[in-house]
Amino acid sequence: MAPHNDSSPAENFTNGFNRMTLQSSGSSSLTVEDLTAELGSSYDSSTLDAPVSHVKRPLVPGVYVPTMCFFDKETEDVDTVTIAHHAVRLARAGITGLATQGSNGEAVHLTHSERQVVTATTRKALNEAGFSQMPIIVGCGAQSTREAVLLCRQAWQAGGDYALVLPPSYYAPLFAPSSQTILEFFNAVADASPIPIIIYNYPGAVNGMDMSSDIIVQLAQHPNIVGVKLTCGNTGKLNRVVAGTRKLSKEYDPKNPDFLVLAGSADFSIQALAAGGHGILAGLANIAPKACTKTIELWNQGKHTEAQEMQEVVSQGDWTAIQGGVVGVKAGLEKWAGYGGYCRSPLPRPTPEQSKNWKNGFKDLIMLEKSL
Amino acid sequence: MAPHNDSSPAENFTNGFNRMTLQSSGSSSLTVEDLTAELGSSYDSSTLDAPVSHVKRPLVPGVYVPTMCFFDKETEDVDTVTIAHHAVRLARAGITGLATQGSNGEAVHLTHSERQVVTATTRKALNEAGFSQMPIIVGCGAQSTREAVLLCRQAWQAGGDYALVLPPSYYAPLFAPSSQTILEFFNAVADASPIPIIIYNYPGAVNGMDMSSDIIVQLAQHPNIVGVKLTCGNTGKLNRVVAGTRKLSKEYDPKNPDFLVLAGSADFSIQALAAGGHGILAGLANIAPKACTKTIELWNQGKHTEAQEMQEVVSQGDWTAIQGGVVGVKAGLEKWAGYGGYCRSPLPRPTPEQSKNWKNGFKDLIMLEKSL
Amino acid sequence: MAPHNDSSPAENFTNGFNRMTLQSSGSSSLTVEDLTAELGSSYDSSTLDAPVSHVKRPLVPGVYVPTMCFFDKETEDVDTVTIAHHAVRLARAGITGLATQGSNGEAVHLTHSERQVVTATTRKALNEAGFSQMPIIVGCGAQSTREAVLLCRQAWQAGGDYALVLPPSYYAPLFAPSSQTILEFFNAVADASPIPIIIYNYPGAVNGMDMSSDIIVQLAQHPNIVGVKLTCGNTGKLNRVVAGTRKLSKEYDPKNPDFLVLAGSADFSIQALAAGGHGILAGLANIAPKACTKTIELWNQGKHTEAQEMQEVVSQGDWTAIQGGVVGVKAGLEKWAGYGGYCRSPLPRPTPEQSKNWKNGFKDLIMLEKSL
Amino acid sequence: MAPHNDSSPAENFTNGFNRMTLQSSGSSSLTVEDLTAELGSSYDSSTLDAPVSHVKRPLVPGVYVPTMCFFDKETEDVDTVTIAHHAVRLARAGITGLATQGSNGEAVHLTHSERQVVTATTRKALNEAGFSQMPIIVGCGAQSTREAVLLCRQAWQAGGDYALVLPPSYYAPLFAPSSQTILEFFNAVADASPIPIIIYNYPGAVNGMDMSSDIIVQLAQHPNIVGVKLTCGNTGKLNRVVAGTRKLSKEYDPKNPDFLVLAGSADFSIQALAAGGHGILAGLANIAPKACTKTIELWNQGKHTEAQEMQEVVSQGDWTAIQGGVVGVKAGLEKWAGYGGYCRSPLPRPTPEQSKNWKNGFKDLIMLEKSL
Repeated sequence: MAPHNDSSPAENFTNGFNRMTLQSSGSSSLTVEDLTAELGSSYDSSTLDAPVSHVKRPLVPGVYVPTMCFFDKETEDVDTVTIAHHAVRLARAGITGLATQGSNGEAVHLTHSERQVVTATTRKALNEAGFSQMPIIVGCGAQSTREAVLLCRQAWQAGGDYALVLPPSYYAPLFAPSSQTILEFFNAVADASPIPIIIYNYPGAVNGMDMSSDIIVQLAQHPNIVGVKLTCGNTGKLNRVVAGTRKLSKEYDPKNPDFLVLAGSADFSIQALAAGGHGILAGLANIAPKACTKTIELWNQGKHTEAQEMQEVVSQGDWTAIQGGVVGVKAGLEKWAGYGGYCRSPLPRPTPEQSKNWKNGFKDLIMLEKSL
Repeated sequence: MAPHNDSSPAENFTNGFNRMTLQSSGSSSLTVEDLTAELGSSYDSSTLDAPVSHVKRPLVPGVYVPTMCFFDKETEDVDTVTIAHHAVRLARAGITGLATQGSNGEAVHLTHSERQVVTATTRKALNEAGFSQMPIIVGCGAQSTREAVLLCRQAWQAGGDYALVLPPSYYAPLFAPSSQTILEFFNAVADASPIPIIIYNYPGAVNGMDMSSDIIVQLAQHPNIVGVKLTCGNTGKLNRVVAGTRKLSKEYDPKNPDFLVLAGSADFSIQALAAGGHGILAGLANIAPKACTKTIELWNQGKHTEAQEMQEVVSQGDWTAIQGGVVGVKAGLEKWAGYGGYCRSPLPRPTPEQSKNWKNGFKDLIMLEKSL
Repeated sequence: MAPHNDSSPAENFTNGFNRMTLQSSGSSSLTVEDLTAELGSSYDSSTLDAPVSHVKRPLVPGVYVPTMCFFDKETEDVDTVTIAHHAVRLARAGITGLATQGSNGEAVHLTHSERQVVTATTRKALNEAGFSQMPIIVGCGAQSTREAVLLCRQAWQAGGDYALVLPPSYYAPLFAPSSQTILEFFNAVADASPIPIIIYNYPGAVNGMDMSSDIIVQLAQHPNIVGVKLTCGNTGKLNRVVAGTRKLSKEYDPKNPDFLVLAGSADFSIQALAAGGHGILAGLANIAPKACTKTIELWNQGKHTEAQEMQEVVSQGDWTAIQGGVVGVKAGLEKWAGYGGYCRSPLPRPTPEQSKNWKNGFKDLIMLEKSL
Repeated sequence: MAPHNDSSPAENFTNGFNRMTLQSSGSSSLTVEDLTAELGSSYDSSTLDAPVSHVKRPLVPGVYVPTMCFFDKETEDVDTVTIAHHAVRLARAGITGLATQGSNGEAVHLTHSERQVVTATTRKALNEAGFSQMPIIVGCGAQSTREAVLLCRQAWQAGGDYALVLPPSYYAPLFAPSSQTILEFFNAVADASPIPIIIYNYPGAVNGMDMSSDIIVQLAQHPNIVGVKLTCGNTGKLNRVVAGTRKLSKEYDPKNPDFLVLAGSADFSIQALAAGGHGILAGLANIAPKACTKTIELWNQGKHTEAQEMQEVVSQGDWTAIQGGVVGVKAGLEKWAGYGGYCRSPLPRPTPEQSKNWKNGFKDLIMLEKSL
């Protein structure tokens, strides 16, 4: 954690580069050639210049949206046109920032080169629409420390501003006691990453591994670890993390905290704010960016009754998103926004009945969204 | 759910009695003799008259405490003297109600007759100390519908006012789809119970079974189901339950709601209130009843900043209670209140180091408690 | 573990009696009156004399059947007539022993007094049919050490010969490290139990707690712990337990081992024998006692090809039993044996389609059974 | 499933190639350039010719070893010298085949290009040592159908003979009911893969997803799905799968079955054979290839007593491997074979005490191994 203008990606990058000896020769070292290669021939090389003109985009309180990844309905190829359209639509709705390569972005369905295409396309679309200051968070979790670092480097090259990192879990039973392995993993990645790290606590995605408030606060002391997304839904933990990390700051400015604490789901937006949280990074905002933003604004303006009423509509809509997941949210977008398509195989395409139920499940929320 | 003065325990009791044919003859029917027998020779029969003079104790918003059960350090027999002392201490601290036979009360370590002794002792102690209006909630979960009903009847006989019921889970893989079995279970128990039911959603205690907001709202329509305790920590669900059950009321009075929604842990007290919840039923209040109560009072008075500051101390203290569980909370009571003792075997007695850590873990909270 | 003729229930009983101070006075001590009381007015007191004429029934290799508990279809009261009929039918089919109060016996749906009725009825039926030498194993697991001991005493009083004990799990996160709490629990119960203990390893029934071969072998050194039922299906563990416990014997007689290792499901009968196991304690034998017995006989006679062929029919039939559980096995009995009825609420009654599927699922096995 | 000489990789490859439109143009299509690119500049292009001279290597009963992947202790780069040495050592010990990219091979710690290096190195080493007929199985599981297909194609290009495929699980809650999604996934991958598929059932690695015998038998009907590795340890399921797939063959030859059923752990080798299984694919064979092979030979020769004695040593050694996982097995190799090194970060390096315990845990097994 550090005042953001203190973090120098280039510098960290070099440190990390040396520390991880990623450039060392040998049969499997990851050279710049590898990296370029991984980006693939289909990758718009112009984005490779992005880092050069890499401007600092602060991580401030608000609503961050883990964008969907869209695919051609026939070939399942990445649909960059829709990805760009969706990103701009969200930006115009007034959200604070975007996140690529999350569960909603089907990161686990993409190759490294495709991930680059998605992030670079999003960055480019935002810039061209006049949102060059809007930050992009990129999912960079991996099982090995070096692949996580590689993903952070690739995210930076594609124009990402922050890396959202899940803890490794595949070999969890073999980890060192008291989460020592988790601490070392995050510190090593933060040391080597060219962009600041946001911890991602989502037990459902990592075999139930749930990071404690103690560990998160401990990791927050690293100058290149600047926030956390709590998808566990544990607002007691969120409250402890806010209190514990605030104490690390010389002076705490709730409008620009050194360590940003975000709720991972829209159905506990004001609950998170009540506990001292700073906002949300939530999939439902793909469907209703204005409603999610307005709910938080109302609360921050002290209009708690109105905020609570709006939260109830958001929470009910989120229940549909939680049950339908990325398949349901895409069906909702298709029905209410005219685009969305399907997830990559093997994720199923919704049955007519499912589509109908999901459309109805989002109805009240959409009515609210359109009224804003 | 029903205006509480509409619910007639005696009437429900009779209905249930007939419906469940609990009095039918046969090799295994549960007769009144059985019941009396189950109460055991050590059971103060005077409490059997309690129902006769059973007064109505409303279930209002506030702080409910799942009391500990105390045991003789040598024999591990139930220590009724300490149970009475603790109940009165909590009542004098200003809490709203008590709950016996929860996880903190080691219900799974008690025989039916011992459970009766604990509840009757608590009722008697409260009455003698001038708290005859304070309601007692009694844990009555069981795997079979008829045992759950038996526990509700025994709770009523021992002076309990409400029954806190966990869903059955042992044979969950064999249940009917879409939670039909769970719905039928709760409705059957509510039909037969002489006292109103409070649904207990605690996945950690029932093999991960997590009741949805849809099911809880559906069950809330039963006239004898009057509340829910959400220990899952899911405040999004809590928000949906509050919204869904409010709609069932002719007119909604937040100070006396028809369906009471309680947070199951003190570390999300104000988060629950922000979501429309009515209070907590939380183990930490055994340690710091005043701090838990004050946090909620401050929030309800609109003093959100002060409430948030106090919540942070409560949440940090709760972290110790969550990690140490009933073993740690008893160690804390022993260190800071001079009583507590140990849990029943096989629960271990804390090591000196554990006792020290737990004492320190509660320190800030105790300092706050003593300042109130 | 000890040569069985060395174990003296009476003696152990006294030891345990004193150690557990179960007779100590006090508000909650469990007195003999309590015990009798718990047996209930409906309990045939004649069985109380059973212990007096308690004969030694050896625990030998073979097929043990966890019997179903049967209920009146209207009242759900325990149906002692069918319980007796079923026990005798199984005994006549040539099985080695019976077990009451297991998952198939719906122990979690029975009160203590009902459990006594079931075990006493089974003992009485076997005696009257000329099977007075057939041992009865009784499920006696509980969360507290003292309740487990009480259940062992009650099992002994009702005519049980061995106690099948699950480890406690409700408060598992609070247990002492390295399974110290589990070791102390089993040793304490074994010290106090009037009948020998059989360890029950069934992770699915205890929140995933899975006892290791190391712990089981360590517990096998207790003179009153004489066997294990492995429902985990881990035949590698079974192989380690057989090897580890054999080493504890002065001389090992596979026909009468000091420590009996049983497979908990019929679908790995010969696999368990191949690994050195001694037999099975499996629910499927309620449906096909002869097939289960014959499969093991063939293997022990060295007729491995025939045994493997029969095992395949048994395994396929067991797949139906595993999926339908106690609900499906009862449906199968009803269809193929003319009795069975339903489980206690809230377990659902099978739909016509389920009944049909389960009947068909057992068809090949039943054909085999009838041919034997 | 099909007589292996019927399966034509080239043909399947073309089918898959067209069906998956992997060559379609577009921003994210996977072109041959991509693939070559993914192989990385460090990749020995000679292996690209392998497919050209791709000979058919039958999948016969026996002992398959999921080889470890070795790394430079300083740089953590892939150590191809040790990988080659280990492969040849195992081949000379008499094992039946090797598997790369399994849990023991730290596949989740490798990039696509590194995976190619490992498989190609293994193939080359075997060929040069005179084991050109020994098949190599390559782990090819992925979350998306197309990445799984890509991995199968890359495995084929690197010289792999069979693909071991885990089911996707990240979005399991969103899958179609009754495992329809899993069936479609495996059939689609089998359609497009240039090499035959072996189903990998390992719930521990995929959030608990456990494939049933019904699904496995159903998938076995696909001409390009030729076997299964059951790491679940469920030998009842194994027995059902053997019986169900045998029925699919015109004539069944246990020495060359159309569908190969392998145990996933060495501690249930003879249990699997007793149930009709054909061998093992087990990590312990990295430590003791001769003992694992001899145990199975003895059983197949009808020397069941000797086999059971040897199985006990193997099972006890496997217990150490199960507890220590890939970290422990490498420590064992280091201590007993003089090589092994460490796993990639964040996996911890063993403490001196752990190394000592693991060395001792393998001692009896190593003594046995050296005696063979």
